Amino acid sequence: MTDGAGRFITLEGGEGVGKSSNMDFIASWLEQRGISVLRTREPGGTRFAESVRELLLNRDSAPITDRAELLLIFAARDSHLEEVVRPALARGEWVLCDRFTDATYAYQGAGRGLGEQPVAWLESWVQGSLRPDLTLLLDAPVEVGFSRADRRGDRDRFESEQRAFFERIRQAYLARARQEPARFRVVDADRPLDSVQSSLSDTLEDWLKTGSPSSHG
Amino acid sequence: MTDGAGRFITLEGGEGVGKSSNMDFIASWLEQRGISVLRTREPGGTRFAESVRELLLNRDSAPITDRAELLLIFAARDSHLEEVVRPALARGEWVLCDRFTDATYAYQGAGRGLGEQPVAWLESWVQGSLRPDLTLLLDAPVEVGFSRADRRGDRDRFESEQRAFFERIRQAYLARARQEPARFRVVDADRPLDSVQSSLSDTLEDWLKTGSPSSHG
Repeated sequence: MTDGAGRFITLEGGEGVGKSSNMDFIASWLEQRGISVLRTREPGGTRFAESVRELLLNRDSAPITDRAELLLIFAARDSHLEEVVRPALARGEWVLCDRFTDATYAYQGAGRGLGEQPVAWLESWVQGSLRPDLTLLLDAPVEVGFSRADRRGDRDRFESEQRAFFERIRQAYLARARQEPARFRVVDADRPLDSVQSSLSDTLEDWLKTGSPSSHG
Repeated sequence: MTDGAGRFITLEGGEGVGKSSNMDFIASWLEQRGISVLRTREPGGTRFAESVRELLLNRDSAPITDRAELLLIFAARDSHLEEVVRPALARGEWVLCDRFTDATYAYQGAGRGLGEQPVAWLESWVQGSLRPDLTLLLDAPVEVGFSRADRRGDRDRFESEQRAFFERIRQAYLARARQEPARFRVVDADRPLDSVQSSLSDTLEDWLKTGSPSSHG
């Protein structure tokens, strides 16, 4: 891809689907093809957004209402977009982001039950027309992700919620992928890591070949 | 006022108009008439909302975008309403709050130039139909407030902005008061404190006499 336009790629999925290992894999895969990638994450990516992340995820933080959680996520997102993502895309860089607004539809909209409408209003107000060019969704049954997260001993505030919550999240992600087939690629994450990465590799190869259309050119 | 219904009273005004001294005065005045008052402030009033206040006002905090500022204010407000204001009103208590959503229209909507529309959407989503029963607006020319704030040596992030910003805030407050005359009472704060308090006393007396309608009964 040498057209000089940036691309905005997001990696999505529920708990324990292997986002961290696959972030590394995707970044290396692109770099091997001469595409340098800015890696970032949400909520986070700026000093302000990391303070907000701390408020959201630290168990010792004060209790937070569902609506406040959604508003904080978009506050962090605005900072991240203004300071990191938009400037990088404007310079023609590729941005690879660990979770973005699809996670907000899944976790806060469906998981917390706030509904799509407030998420959609905030998305439009904060992002304007900015959307990812490609969203890779790692999908696995809730039990699979749960047992992996357990093995890591990694249970923050979100991960201590119940099974039904995570089922709503998975279904919301899959529904979004069905609604936007041009942007989404769903990768079955209920397999050994090398199979998942082989699928990711094929998926990226195919996307690059078919033009990997950019809206930031 | 012994009808058993709570009242929600807010005190508003720009920098240096004497809100703190007058909060004390209003609380004492009501208590002398047998009305016990829950005093609170925005942003703040809960542990979570005070952490957000810290992010907003501490000069050492990370830089923050205008939109993120507005979203944090409503995140803190949601927590404050859910944990403090609504439960108090439901118990029939009176709540006296140092700044509320009129300040958001004035500072973020007009001062920062975000406009009324996002503030109105967030107000409606977070507050539902909850509005103050009475809003006391302390009004003074910008220069007067500025020189008082200077004398206190009290210049936080908001106070280090320029004169035009504060003029927009003053005009937005006055415009809101004109639009909602039933809820607002404007008190001229460009006078010695005892004259201001004499006006506040007359205003409250008059409001109580004319029924001080509650929407929380």
